[in-house]
Amino acid sequence: MKISIVNPNTSVAMTGEIGAAATRSASPDTELLVRRSLHGPEAIEGPFDGALCVPGLLKAIRQAEEDGAMAHVIACFDDTGLDAARALSRRPVVGVGEAALHMASLVAQEFCVVTTLSRSVPTLRMNILRCGFERRCPQVLASDIPVLELHRPESGAWEKLSTLIVRALENGAEAAVLGCAGMADFSAELQARLGVPVIDGVDAAVRMAEMLARSGLSPSKRGGWAYPSRANLLG
Amino acid sequence: MKISIVNPNTSVAMTGEIGAAATRSASPDTELLVRRSLHGPEAIEGPFDGALCVPGLLKAIRQAEEDGAMAHVIACFDDTGLDAARALSRRPVVGVGEAALHMASLVAQEFCVVTTLSRSVPTLRMNILRCGFERRCPQVLASDIPVLELHRPESGAWEKLSTLIVRALENGAEAAVLGCAGMADFSAELQARLGVPVIDGVDAAVRMAEMLARSGLSPSKRGGWAYPSRANLLG
Amino acid sequence: MKISIVNPNTSVAMTGEIGAAATRSASPDTELLVRRSLHGPEAIEGPFDGALCVPGLLKAIRQAEEDGAMAHVIACFDDTGLDAARALSRRPVVGVGEAALHMASLVAQEFCVVTTLSRSVPTLRMNILRCGFERRCPQVLASDIPVLELHRPESGAWEKLSTLIVRALENGAEAAVLGCAGMADFSAELQARLGVPVIDGVDAAVRMAEMLARSGLSPSKRGGWAYPSRANLLG
Amino acid sequence: MKISIVNPNTSVAMTGEIGAAATRSASPDTELLVRRSLHGPEAIEGPFDGALCVPGLLKAIRQAEEDGAMAHVIACFDDTGLDAARALSRRPVVGVGEAALHMASLVAQEFCVVTTLSRSVPTLRMNILRCGFERRCPQVLASDIPVLELHRPESGAWEKLSTLIVRALENGAEAAVLGCAGMADFSAELQARLGVPVIDGVDAAVRMAEMLARSGLSPSKRGGWAYPSRANLLG
Amino acid sequence: MKISIVNPNTSVAMTGEIGAAATRSASPDTELLVRRSLHGPEAIEGPFDGALCVPGLLKAIRQAEEDGAMAHVIACFDDTGLDAARALSRRPVVGVGEAALHMASLVAQEFCVVTTLSRSVPTLRMNILRCGFERRCPQVLASDIPVLELHRPESGAWEKLSTLIVRALENGAEAAVLGCAGMADFSAELQARLGVPVIDGVDAAVRMAEMLARSGLSPSKRGGWAYPSRANLLG
Amino acid sequence: MKISIVNPNTSVAMTGEIGAAATRSASPDTELLVRRSLHGPEAIEGPFDGALCVPGLLKAIRQAEEDGAMAHVIACFDDTGLDAARALSRRPVVGVGEAALHMASLVAQEFCVVTTLSRSVPTLRMNILRCGFERRCPQVLASDIPVLELHRPESGAWEKLSTLIVRALENGAEAAVLGCAGMADFSAELQARLGVPVIDGVDAAVRMAEMLARSGLSPSKRGGWAYPSRANLLG
Repeated sequence: MKISIVNPNTSVAMTGEIGAAATRSASPDTELLVRRSLHGPEAIEGPFDGALCVPGLLKAIRQAEEDGAMAHVIACFDDTGLDAARALSRRPVVGVGEAALHMASLVAQEFCVVTTLSRSVPTLRMNILRCGFERRCPQVLASDIPVLELHRPESGAWEKLSTLIVRALENGAEAAVLGCAGMADFSAELQARLGVPVIDGVDAAVRMAEMLARSGLSPSKRGGWAYPSRANLLG
Repeated sequence: MKISIVNPNTSVAMTGEIGAAATRSASPDTELLVRRSLHGPEAIEGPFDGALCVPGLLKAIRQAEEDGAMAHVIACFDDTGLDAARALSRRPVVGVGEAALHMASLVAQEFCVVTTLSRSVPTLRMNILRCGFERRCPQVLASDIPVLELHRPESGAWEKLSTLIVRALENGAEAAVLGCAGMADFSAELQARLGVPVIDGVDAAVRMAEMLARSGLSPSKRGGWAYPSRANLLG
Repeated sequence: MKISIVNPNTSVAMTGEIGAAATRSASPDTELLVRRSLHGPEAIEGPFDGALCVPGLLKAIRQAEEDGAMAHVIACFDDTGLDAARALSRRPVVGVGEAALHMASLVAQEFCVVTTLSRSVPTLRMNILRCGFERRCPQVLASDIPVLELHRPESGAWEKLSTLIVRALENGAEAAVLGCAGMADFSAELQARLGVPVIDGVDAAVRMAEMLARSGLSPSKRGGWAYPSRANLLG
Repeated sequence: MKISIVNPNTSVAMTGEIGAAATRSASPDTELLVRRSLHGPEAIEGPFDGALCVPGLLKAIRQAEEDGAMAHVIACFDDTGLDAARALSRRPVVGVGEAALHMASLVAQEFCVVTTLSRSVPTLRMNILRCGFERRCPQVLASDIPVLELHRPESGAWEKLSTLIVRALENGAEAAVLGCAGMADFSAELQARLGVPVIDGVDAAVRMAEMLARSGLSPSKRGGWAYPSRANLLG
Repeated sequence: MKISIVNPNTSVAMTGEIGAAATRSASPDTELLVRRSLHGPEAIEGPFDGALCVPGLLKAIRQAEEDGAMAHVIACFDDTGLDAARALSRRPVVGVGEAALHMASLVAQEFCVVTTLSRSVPTLRMNILRCGFERRCPQVLASDIPVLELHRPESGAWEKLSTLIVRALENGAEAAVLGCAGMADFSAELQARLGVPVIDGVDAAVRMAEMLARSGLSPSKRGGWAYPSRANLLG
Repeated sequence: MKISIVNPNTSVAMTGEIGAAATRSASPDTELLVRRSLHGPEAIEGPFDGALCVPGLLKAIRQAEEDGAMAHVIACFDDTGLDAARALSRRPVVGVGEAALHMASLVAQEFCVVTTLSRSVPTLRMNILRCGFERRCPQVLASDIPVLELHRPESGAWEKLSTLIVRALENGAEAAVLGCAGMADFSAELQARLGVPVIDGVDAAVRMAEMLARSGLSPSKRGGWAYPSRANLLG
């Protein structure tokens, strides 16, 4: 079964990391189609970047669907363009952010999100509200590490995230969600060190996309995700 | 004072109607800059159309700001691209949808929205939640008239909207919000006929944009609306 | 156009300050009718004071309406007597508190209120809930400066408010609302110093009252604001 | 133990009925002080009436407290003046409306309120929200019988209330709250006929007032109910 | 009138303390039937203990009902088995937790719960949500004293609870609820010392059970509390 | 990998049907351990049945865990005993009800639940609130078919469920969740007939249990699901 992973930003390096993480999570019989948006921002930091990446994201999803993808993952924790993608696609589409939140709610009664920049927090809070997890996930904490510096050793990313999670645990969280698709590498070690579930959205979304595809479920076309009458506008 | 009105769709006719409605609402000393998106869908019916119109919308807002606009109105009831526009702009930005909801909440304890297509209802419900009006506005009703047919006499638009509002009043609403920028023409007559406040978003947004500009208020740059580091991507 | 500003307390000095603030905000073609309640408390600190000022407030509103006022502002941040006034009046009525909250929600995703006494906080929280801003405005902070001491230099009001706002910004707020009609003078300087929107309710309410009047909107008479059958009881 | 029952309207007949109902509910060792407001409206229909009755209500409460009342009941389902009364009093104060809602929530997971006029519904909805019962009590239904006609045989009150409750039961309610202090007489027969709990607020409030007084509990003076500094204004 | 108090755990000592507390609260004409579960955990610390105590609890309630109890109190702050008991019983059933929350909401606009172990906090938060008090009771604080050590002098229970309440008051609470049936002894002294209402659930529940019984109210059998068709399974 | 499916009721026939449904959903490399509670009710209809089945359910889970199960499914739509099971287990535990709700929320913005008896509706509404889906799933509809009659042809179950779903779709739902583990057989045909996603909880829960186990996630032991100190009480 083919599953497409679309990185809505244009960064080749980050697409590679996401692809590697997805590969670790995918079932043996899954063939991953890892794509990125071909135009737009190289990282998604705030709603302006989020808006500009959507046309490229939608093109990648349409292409993947023509190539036989049975489900799609939008590999940005902001779940950028999720509604538009679900309208365009006849296959399940899963955002990395929502997937992690759903997964966390199955292993913790209260959990936190730790993310990159403060400017992303309002978008994440809105997504949490949209999914219905506002009572389960009251803490959304920013590390103030830019997306593209997460993997530079001098960013101190791992330590900063660890410190934020410990503080959240003291304030009632029982698990942590890593709030950026670029943090996938950190989850295993943080979970081992902190002794609580640490959820990576890429892992969660790949597994949920497989699950939905196998269940024969796809977006309802009855409401806001009805197939667009102007799909040809994508060019 | 210059106020820009940006129609995020490309329809020349609808832009003209919106401009005419805005002119009726603007103060005598306001100069309106009425623009439209130059690429993208000619009507916004659902989240796919909504996503594709944003780049053109943002370019129009940037241009209007360079031309001296002191505030911006996004003239689509879906409030498409609102967060991205507020990040990009150093001036107040008001969506037609949110403006109408705020206005309605000052003249009715419970009110309804009547809109065009069912596929737009989930987007409107999400915006209502985002603004905090989910208790004040429990009814969002679709007339199933496409945006571009609102003004064709054979669409029966006026009658259908009137019937929907009457039903909403019987179910607890005390006022009605017209849920499409293309319905501005209907508000005065509906209000006279039905005897309850009927709020048009273009009117509400033009007045709120003037108000914010005169108050010296603009989007806080401290959170999600921080100025984007990749604004040059707009081209 | 005549707009009435009713200070629901009896303080002549505070009425003068509110009138001066309102004058700065009103349009050139607006004639302000600045009145105060003629009996009741000289400051509104808590729900007892709030209840006792309402009869005098309603009389002032009725008189202003007879004098030709096209809209009314209730110049207390508690929005005292708002429902009763909307029932009595055939013109728009705007509370200083709700006006500031609506205005803030157009320029910040999360904002705080800083007010005078702790005993006013529950009333403000209830009003925030009533308007639907409980998610947007989680922080309501008291400075513990009595209303009538705000302008005494030895009260240190400016410094205390500034410190409270800075703390709120660190906890997620992106803008601040001044939670007392007597704080109108502080907004410009605080906004300049802190670099975030600082909203004064008198300014917000005067502009919203003008806006509603010009839009031809008035309180729906269909629900709780139906004209009272015992209006003559006002004496 | 003395318990005061204050009818916030001036109707002698309704005060008598409330007193009779309260007498049926009070403990044998309770002495009831049944009072009414001496000025203001003779029925409370909407927020204007509600506001005008508060000064008289507060005077009656103060007098009852001086006469040794150990707790107070505000005998209007709107819970008019409740916060002001709790600030003024050093004894527990219970509103008829809140008492019935609390009682209902102990014997039904979902319940309805049936009241007199539509214009009272928004006030009741606000009180329901304030108490936290908005999920438990989604249906608030008006019979459109004026308060003072409830007991005229030709009003058909009993039948209308019964019909409204049956409809609410079909829509998910499991119990009914009678939303007017003047409906106390109907509860026993409606409960017997309909086979579900039917709660009268006068009964509920009298019992809760006794209960709080015996428990040694009184309004916290730490928040909004701090003793007013201008209590002498009552005259 | 007979009122049954069922301690859902098997501790003889704790049952004695609860019985003593209940006796102090009951009316002179109430005969208390104080029982405990005869099998299951000797303290209820978390949902596993909570689930295991229910069969024994239900048997005790059935027996008490056969013995003439007119109402039942479930004497665990977790309100363990409350829905099952209300289905089984034809008499009012009151949980110690919900009773304390209702009582607190009549004497404070915001209050806190202080309980024993952190592992009980999620259960209490869920109960608070279920009752509708999530806005009124945002703080649920654990002292980390096990239930059975509350009364050992070396546990320092009184001091720890006092410190927690003081902290909660600084953060907005105006009253405190003692979140364990074993804390009944502490309430009077804490209330005297701290100067705010301190509510003990055993006291609250005994009084509410009496009140409901006297009012002739019992659980609605129309919804989830319909009499079980397999009641004989209790053995 | 071994996954345990525990039917918390004692019905052999229903356990067989659930096992068959689970087998259709499980991965080829999953070995299912299908068990049932050995004492308690033969169907779970309301909270009394729900409470009585928990000890047997917990024993089955403990046994399955000793037998090597890597995750557990509680095969009752009420999610009976979920918290207790998560406390007891060191492996992921998924309830059939919550699994279906999570799955539905990934393919529809608004969905409904259709269940068996009215008496189960309050439990389901509480679970929906607990998960955070109260805005996404406002309609919970009962067919009034007892669990054990679902598969009798004369029950007309399929037609009744179909009619209920069609009505829900007209009222805003975009997908349907089958609210009983015994309805698994109906989902494929209903989905084909109605053209919207129809989600069966057994399918959803089996896939989510596999997913969580493969992700290396298990219940956080930091909060309410800490391992019980009295686990030996299970006997």
